[in-house]
Amino acid sequence: MTALTIVLERMLADIEALGRIGTDPRGGLSRLGLSSQEQLAHTWFKQRAREAGMSLRSDAAGNLFARVQGGAPALAPLMSGSHLDTVPNGGKYDGAAGVVIALEVARVIAECDVRLRHPFEVVVFRAEEPSPFGMSTFGSRALAGRVRPGELDAVDAAGCSLREALRAVGGEPAQIDAVRMSPGAVAAYLEVHNEQGPHLERAGLPLGVVTEIAGIERARWRVIGEPNHSGTTSMLERRDALMASAEIALELERLARNYEGAVGTVGVINVEPNAANIVPGCVDLRWEIRSCFAADLQALGNAVERAARAIVERRGLRLEELARTGSVPASADPVVRDALEEACTARGLTAPLLRSMAGHDASHMAALTKMGMLFIRSTGAKSHVPEEHSPPESLAAAAAVMLDALVRLDRMLD
Amino acid sequence: MTALTIVLERMLADIEALGRIGTDPRGGLSRLGLSSQEQLAHTWFKQRAREAGMSLRSDAAGNLFARVQGGAPALAPLMSGSHLDTVPNGGKYDGAAGVVIALEVARVIAECDVRLRHPFEVVVFRAEEPSPFGMSTFGSRALAGRVRPGELDAVDAAGCSLREALRAVGGEPAQIDAVRMSPGAVAAYLEVHNEQGPHLERAGLPLGVVTEIAGIERARWRVIGEPNHSGTTSMLERRDALMASAEIALELERLARNYEGAVGTVGVINVEPNAANIVPGCVDLRWEIRSCFAADLQALGNAVERAARAIVERRGLRLEELARTGSVPASADPVVRDALEEACTARGLTAPLLRSMAGHDASHMAALTKMGMLFIRSTGAKSHVPEEHSPPESLAAAAAVMLDALVRLDRMLD
Repeated sequence: MTALTIVLERMLADIEALGRIGTDPRGGLSRLGLSSQEQLAHTWFKQRAREAGMSLRSDAAGNLFARVQGGAPALAPLMSGSHLDTVPNGGKYDGAAGVVIALEVARVIAECDVRLRHPFEVVVFRAEEPSPFGMSTFGSRALAGRVRPGELDAVDAAGCSLREALRAVGGEPAQIDAVRMSPGAVAAYLEVHNEQGPHLERAGLPLGVVTEIAGIERARWRVIGEPNHSGTTSMLERRDALMASAEIALELERLARNYEGAVGTVGVINVEPNAANIVPGCVDLRWEIRSCFAADLQALGNAVERAARAIVERRGLRLEELARTGSVPASADPVVRDALEEACTARGLTAPLLRSMAGHDASHMAALTKMGMLFIRSTGAKSHVPEEHSPPESLAAAAAVMLDALVRLDRMLD
Repeated sequence: MTALTIVLERMLADIEALGRIGTDPRGGLSRLGLSSQEQLAHTWFKQRAREAGMSLRSDAAGNLFARVQGGAPALAPLMSGSHLDTVPNGGKYDGAAGVVIALEVARVIAECDVRLRHPFEVVVFRAEEPSPFGMSTFGSRALAGRVRPGELDAVDAAGCSLREALRAVGGEPAQIDAVRMSPGAVAAYLEVHNEQGPHLERAGLPLGVVTEIAGIERARWRVIGEPNHSGTTSMLERRDALMASAEIALELERLARNYEGAVGTVGVINVEPNAANIVPGCVDLRWEIRSCFAADLQALGNAVERAARAIVERRGLRLEELARTGSVPASADPVVRDALEEACTARGLTAPLLRSMAGHDASHMAALTKMGMLFIRSTGAKSHVPEEHSPPESLAAAAAVMLDALVRLDRMLD
């Protein structure tokens, strides 16, 4: 019954409409978190939600919620959504697809004869992508009470603080702690996101069911040696911060390969003084490791740290940790996952089980409520680029499966 | 006889006078090659040379020559000098010490009863230090015919070309090839330079005799992999330009340690896109190797290249060479070296034999004439910093030994 009511054309029109907000002359979309471009996308969403007769509210972290009332309004809402910010020069699907699908499901619920007991809320999380303020998943972390002390003081390259930027988009920095939701305040959270990887395209399938979302540990280290003349300083006298950093990077790579499914990356290296004829005196590097298994993540992080300390000690250098952040792996709730899998089966869709190695707002929602997630196919496995695309049949299938699963969960949950 | 005539106070006053030209508010001296600050130092030199009754000429490369006439003016001149440019935030001795000592020797020859057969010329080479135009030892290379095709087209960060900068200091870019000297045009070349290393200070000695000047091979490489999402790209699928570069750096270090006295450095690494959550797609790196032995330099360079090609092939990346320059090692001429050693012995000075791992103008003069070089002690082995210093007794000893050696060479050479 419900399958007939999802209107693909409406979703495609929404994707295109959002694709015109924050276009970057250098290509793609640049709707950075907490920017006025992201705010324009929020404004667009509010208009669509009002047109669908939904009631709107926002919180002090700048998250946006649009509600379709349920038959038993005292029940905690079922919730779905994603984010509308993008990376610089990003694409039309990352985040937007999840919001557009949740919005379409809400419209169908509001318009059609799909009477749910639970209220249904579409959420637009604030600032999911890595932002100029050195953080990501800001809105969902605020809901989970995971905004770090001092985080609002971070400044972007222009010297604007996260606090000021949040205020400019209508948030209330002083109330950030009050955003935290109590467990049970949401009955279940479902999110659709583009896969950002090759598995669904390789399998020729429109969607998959996410089982786990990786935890991510990140650190910023300063390796301190001694700058010296590259000619007159013999190989034995050197305290070369670049060579030590090279060893650390290769050890991190070797160790990450030891843990199945884990990944480890040194994405950033800045050398001082970075001159052809001076032995590097100082290197700032950033590394991260990811795993869906909490024990692996911890063991790998400890091994990287031990290896790095041994390398700098052997070479007579020093290591300073400038920053360290971590998120724990999150698992889909069995009840929500079953509802999604059963909805797929009922529609004759083969939906492989997938792990998410990318972070998502859903990862933080898992700390608050029963979480489930669908991945839709990423054409060419491309993500965070202007060409980012997901096939229309993936959008249609995900919206229909989401709607079916909500109907199932509405019956099962209180 | 001549020992009595060197006037240390004049040399110290000259060092101090030059130390007031091009002072940098951030510390030390910034008289970059081809800058107006370097030009002010050349002007200062011209005034001192005129006061000493010397005749002046300059060439199309901006080199400056001040001559004391000899008893047999048809003979090719004996020559000594160094450079007056500095690195950014450099010190008062690198280059300046060699010019000031040669100038003092010229004054003594001109004033006193030291009648040489050969003319004696003090040379101030243009732009010896690494310059904003990506080159070094400009003036001496021009004399040796080693300015590379297209080198004058190089531009600094402000977009000014070497050609324009040369014209601004009175050089003639179109005549650069005519600067080349024919072998025999100089009877012998002697240079005093601060050691920029620890050997003399450790030995508690004022000066040493240089036996060889290292050859330097430099390359700028681009390692090209593929930028990818640091979460969704498994360790096996990566083509990580940073990990490949780390391997290349460590191989270069390992190989350089295999050749006694050689050094190898990766001084510059620039990562693209240099973001915490993106597998590095591209790395620009600069490396150099130095050795006083031509065969070692070549073998080491080949080994580095082979190792790097194997690393990028194994990892499925590409390597592009953006630039490559090389200078061959230079040996002091036995006749000049003997004259310097005998002068030291005659004065009761213990002067160790030293290799120079830093490049010098003398290295290019060795292609044209009999070359010899003295190192004077560097306090704290410091160089290229505002605190750069050499003891007054080193200056005095070097000037006296230089004058004695010139007298010996004047008799021996035609």
